[in-house]
Amino acid sequence: MLKQARAFETRETIVRAAGLVFSQLSYSTAKLSDIIQESGVTQGALYFHFESKRDLALEVIRRQHEISLGSGEEFLRSDVPGIEGLVLLSRELATQLTTNPIVRAGLRLGTESSNFFPEFARGPYVDWINTSEKFLHKAVAEGDVLPATNVPDVANFVIEAFTGAQMVSQVISEWADLSDRLVRMWELVLNGIVVPERREKYAALPERVRLDVVTAR
Amino acid sequence: MLKQARAFETRETIVRAAGLVFSQLSYSTAKLSDIIQESGVTQGALYFHFESKRDLALEVIRRQHEISLGSGEEFLRSDVPGIEGLVLLSRELATQLTTNPIVRAGLRLGTESSNFFPEFARGPYVDWINTSEKFLHKAVAEGDVLPATNVPDVANFVIEAFTGAQMVSQVISEWADLSDRLVRMWELVLNGIVVPERREKYAALPERVRLDVVTAR
Repeated sequence: MLKQARAFETRETIVRAAGLVFSQLSYSTAKLSDIIQESGVTQGALYFHFESKRDLALEVIRRQHEISLGSGEEFLRSDVPGIEGLVLLSRELATQLTTNPIVRAGLRLGTESSNFFPEFARGPYVDWINTSEKFLHKAVAEGDVLPATNVPDVANFVIEAFTGAQMVSQVISEWADLSDRLVRMWELVLNGIVVPERREKYAALPERVRLDVVTAR
Repeated sequence: MLKQARAFETRETIVRAAGLVFSQLSYSTAKLSDIIQESGVTQGALYFHFESKRDLALEVIRRQHEISLGSGEEFLRSDVPGIEGLVLLSRELATQLTTNPIVRAGLRLGTESSNFFPEFARGPYVDWINTSEKFLHKAVAEGDVLPATNVPDVANFVIEAFTGAQMVSQVISEWADLSDRLVRMWELVLNGIVVPERREKYAALPERVRLDVVTAR
């Protein structure tokens, strides 16, 4: 049992080190030797747990997606209205992106993944679009969003807008202006989907996207 | 003079070949030998015009940006209303993306560029945001968009939404559903910025984004 616990811990150490390395270097630039050095484990230990750099990258993508989608499920189960949950989830994702190397690495690998892991790039986007749909259906049921709203259309649009805001922010400011971009995005999106008589209620919601931690670089 | 014309032609042949190769392979996977083979020129001829793979990639990015921004300038100079120009420009970009290997290669290199060419990634986005602002100022002057609109905010949002729609479409369908995504994006965006009494006038505009050529792959 002790041996198993130690093996588990070594594996976690390697995944954390891979997150750090892949968040700083591109997939093609990063070397297994960088991850070995960062983790402090032996080459043998790394190969015991992971067959290749590709294997490690896929584990980082899987973890990032688990961490990020997990926050979505929490908000969905909570008492928070759907529309508020969707906005606060984007705040949570932005926080993870700027503070958690595994999330940053997973997202970076995901951007590169249409090249290196085409078969793994599609799933996360589909999951996010589905999650966004669940929040919007909840918001329709709660009377915050017009019943005539085409929920799949708006769900796709929200994920595209978040993806784009995050990408433009990365290129222009290394994510330093991400909260500004998200506040503006939500002001425009909510204005288009919240029923007029509830706009006042949610007028201050976009501002709540602002992160306490701007960047953890 | 004949020699100069021939040199110019060789250079163009190399750039076209680089566009084809970089549109199919990632920057790190593509080799100069692939480009030499695709172009049919000698290694010596290639090195006469370009020092390195990096040099060639930067030329492809520069060309793509020139081609795409050029269409923007044309629409701005024309009699087309600003709001219509902005929508039709996105159609033009989507067409270029699906039919012109240099544009596809430039965009692909641009996505990878936060890793390989961080210093060249920022400029194109800033140019696009500025172009989007010009269209929106025109639209405000023409009375199609509310004068109270925060033009820089909406301009940024439009570029983010297009970037995201293009990325999600690439990952999910290799751009096959790009026109569907753009139609939906414009329906939602126009609904948020066009003055109520002009909505009828522009109700059919988003549908005009649909491409004749879905994909040229």
